Amino acid sequence: MKADLSKLERAFNPKVLAVVGDSGFFQWLRSSENFNGKRYSVQVNPKTIAQIEEMGVENYTSLLDIPEPVDLAIVTVGRKYALQILEDCIKKDVAAAHFFTAGFAETDTEDGIDLERALTTRAIEAGFHLIGPNCMGIFNPAVGLRQNMGQYVGTTGPIGFISQSGTHAINFSLEAHLQGMDISKSVSFGNGTVLDSAEYLDYFGRDDTIKVIGMYLEGVRDGRRLLEVLREVSSKKPVVVWKGGRTEGGSRAVASHTGSLAVSQTIWTSAMKQGGAIPVLGMDELIDTLKALFYLKPVYGDRVVLAGGSGGQSVAITDAFTETGLEVPSLSQESFDKFEEFFTVIGGSYRNPIDTGNPNRAQMKRIIEIIEHDSNTDNIVMLMNASGAGPPGMDDQRDSDIKAIAEMRNRTSKPVMVCLQLTMLPRVIADARTIVKELQDKGIPAFTSLERGAVALRNALDYYKYRQA
Amino acid sequence: MKADLSKLERAFNPKVLAVVGDSGFFQWLRSSENFNGKRYSVQVNPKTIAQIEEMGVENYTSLLDIPEPVDLAIVTVGRKYALQILEDCIKKDVAAAHFFTAGFAETDTEDGIDLERALTTRAIEAGFHLIGPNCMGIFNPAVGLRQNMGQYVGTTGPIGFISQSGTHAINFSLEAHLQGMDISKSVSFGNGTVLDSAEYLDYFGRDDTIKVIGMYLEGVRDGRRLLEVLREVSSKKPVVVWKGGRTEGGSRAVASHTGSLAVSQTIWTSAMKQGGAIPVLGMDELIDTLKALFYLKPVYGDRVVLAGGSGGQSVAITDAFTETGLEVPSLSQESFDKFEEFFTVIGGSYRNPIDTGNPNRAQMKRIIEIIEHDSNTDNIVMLMNASGAGPPGMDDQRDSDIKAIAEMRNRTSKPVMVCLQLTMLPRVIADARTIVKELQDKGIPAFTSLERGAVALRNALDYYKYRQA
Repeated sequence: MKADLSKLERAFNPKVLAVVGDSGFFQWLRSSENFNGKRYSVQVNPKTIAQIEEMGVENYTSLLDIPEPVDLAIVTVGRKYALQILEDCIKKDVAAAHFFTAGFAETDTEDGIDLERALTTRAIEAGFHLIGPNCMGIFNPAVGLRQNMGQYVGTTGPIGFISQSGTHAINFSLEAHLQGMDISKSVSFGNGTVLDSAEYLDYFGRDDTIKVIGMYLEGVRDGRRLLEVLREVSSKKPVVVWKGGRTEGGSRAVASHTGSLAVSQTIWTSAMKQGGAIPVLGMDELIDTLKALFYLKPVYGDRVVLAGGSGGQSVAITDAFTETGLEVPSLSQESFDKFEEFFTVIGGSYRNPIDTGNPNRAQMKRIIEIIEHDSNTDNIVMLMNASGAGPPGMDDQRDSDIKAIAEMRNRTSKPVMVCLQLTMLPRVIADARTIVKELQDKGIPAFTSLERGAVALRNALDYYKYRQA
Repeated sequence: MKADLSKLERAFNPKVLAVVGDSGFFQWLRSSENFNGKRYSVQVNPKTIAQIEEMGVENYTSLLDIPEPVDLAIVTVGRKYALQILEDCIKKDVAAAHFFTAGFAETDTEDGIDLERALTTRAIEAGFHLIGPNCMGIFNPAVGLRQNMGQYVGTTGPIGFISQSGTHAINFSLEAHLQGMDISKSVSFGNGTVLDSAEYLDYFGRDDTIKVIGMYLEGVRDGRRLLEVLREVSSKKPVVVWKGGRTEGGSRAVASHTGSLAVSQTIWTSAMKQGGAIPVLGMDELIDTLKALFYLKPVYGDRVVLAGGSGGQSVAITDAFTETGLEVPSLSQESFDKFEEFFTVIGGSYRNPIDTGNPNRAQMKRIIEIIEHDSNTDNIVMLMNASGAGPPGMDDQRDSDIKAIAEMRNRTSKPVMVCLQLTMLPRVIADARTIVKELQDKGIPAFTSLERGAVALRNALDYYKYRQA
């Protein structure tokens, strides 16, 4: 069903929220405890009502009794009550309802399939905006609406995320946050029987607080509609798509998960390409690609200068960037001449990669000024180590390196990025997060492995190539 | 030069160590401060000698004055003294010398190339066992001989590591340690002009404390010799090879790093295959593959059952394992019949992947007993979350899951492994390390991402296929 965007706008930024049928652990009342609008509960069990009222939430025994218009209902009843609650939502003219309720076509049972058909038919007939079923609904940290108690509130960021998986939606929001990229709005829409991905994409495309869009999709109901919206949106902002169920086993998993039908991988890839979407293979690549597209200046060339590694690291980063389809050429003669004036080649090299080694590490500012102006390369990639992950002396140099990189970033029109190397030490992870934040606050995306940085830069290049074509 | 293995045995397990020319930060005296044999210094500068004696190390102004036979010399003089120290080493009949000294062919200067030729010619002529030059030498934690102050002492493990890069040798030892895999012996051999990789491989092949061998190579001087030794050693224990400089840019980096000549990637890959080596693309894959080969029971089939994920995670792990060349088929009808007796399909699925969802999570022991006996699958992969990385309720279940997996591992002849999903939270990393250790102590290898586990299992299968052929 094509969405009424004003209804989605109300659902994603609700003033009045109704949680229908919560009980037990009160998953949904707890997740919405920081909601900054008015919250009601709908529940009929007297014992449960007592617990809800103890939480300070006003309860009604019917949705229809709520004394004001409702923008969003979160429905968490057993599936046998799903149709009845849908009727109430329609009667009450709720703007949209998120059905957490599961047990439909994804179970591959006759009951489930029949019930999904009935729910879908009735919603579409009434023009009702049903999100799901079998999903975790909306995350809007600005208004305190969450999919899970572990998610943050208050902070917002540039990302819109559209996901058929609730686990991925939640984990993505948490991991992107740790990588310094926050969510503006996110939706987990499960089986997507009434509103499919294209409707959320259309809505996010028009939302100016959303600068980059990520999607996790398992299937599509109306491919033509998705392609049309994709084309429209990706001409304005980047859309990065992770397709789950790319393989035979994966298709079986997808069918059991959201009841999505298998889509030929060839057809899917070609549609994504036509629509200007950037395909990725997993969550890390999704986060990194969004990060590159949000922070990097436009990427128009595939030639990369790599600097800051030591010995074998320089070899590894060169292999990683080249194998992803980028080029690591020799620098210009002019750059070589400048390096010759001061660079110690015993234990170092400036041919690209620039392997400082220990002898040249203190010269990073001078090195940066040379590579910034090198005419043989289009993109600048710096390699840094988090605390304790590098050779001795590396840490002391770090602050001045970050300063020099940030100054260059402000002068040059070339994309500038940093790759970090992590280890399984908690203090290195903590330190890496500080470095990532510090760099990204200065507009320089930082990636947590050589390979991750390489793939993100290549994906960003693909996006700008599409935009130019 | 072909090695005299008794000399390598003395060098890797020295009783008497001489550090020649250390000064400044005293990198080598500090790295060897836990050495459990007798340590001498050789230094001529009176001020430096005073500092060395203050550290409690006996100093002589010539190697020849040391009053007993020397097993290993660590040479850290400037390159202009390299030939003179080599002569002293030969005269003193030192078993082997590690030349940290750099500035040879890797600088691509006439001086450097000439000096390397002279050093190499003289060593070979005298049958002298020169390790390097331009390298970090030997790591043997059992005797307290290290390449870097950050490395551990005392603990030993099953790994032999042979590396042309010092940075990779050190970082590998640290990261493998954090992944629960310790080093028996490791050597960084840099330019490898006298003793090339084949000699260390031959030696490690005969060392019974070494169960699995990893190599980081940038080139090879005598391909035929390496192939011959590879064939011999890989028929006894797994050899995993990471080749640095696989690309044009990478070859340039390699030339500046260890002066190694470019090797065609096609020729290299085919030689590795003929020799029974398992090629990997980077350090993580190297660690994971060694881990799989050390812990897993022999892998003879490519069919995998995946269990323990939730929703989108199940899709992702299925895609990851299938895309690496393994198969995730439907389980047998017999298994399905057993699942039907108790499994809740609303919010779960047992078709493979086994998506427990929340409703079936407490049934893990029963699930494990079914998949253990499934006739359609050869390998068992469990998905677990580190603390806070998964949906609520996941943590409480963990201890009993680990117990059930360990019991199955002891009953079945099928390979059993665990994949974890990490996040950038220090406490998750700390927790993951505890889980990895706990599982590996019970003989179950644990991998820190779905993709890493998939690639490691496929590589292990490749090794056992080679052994069977």
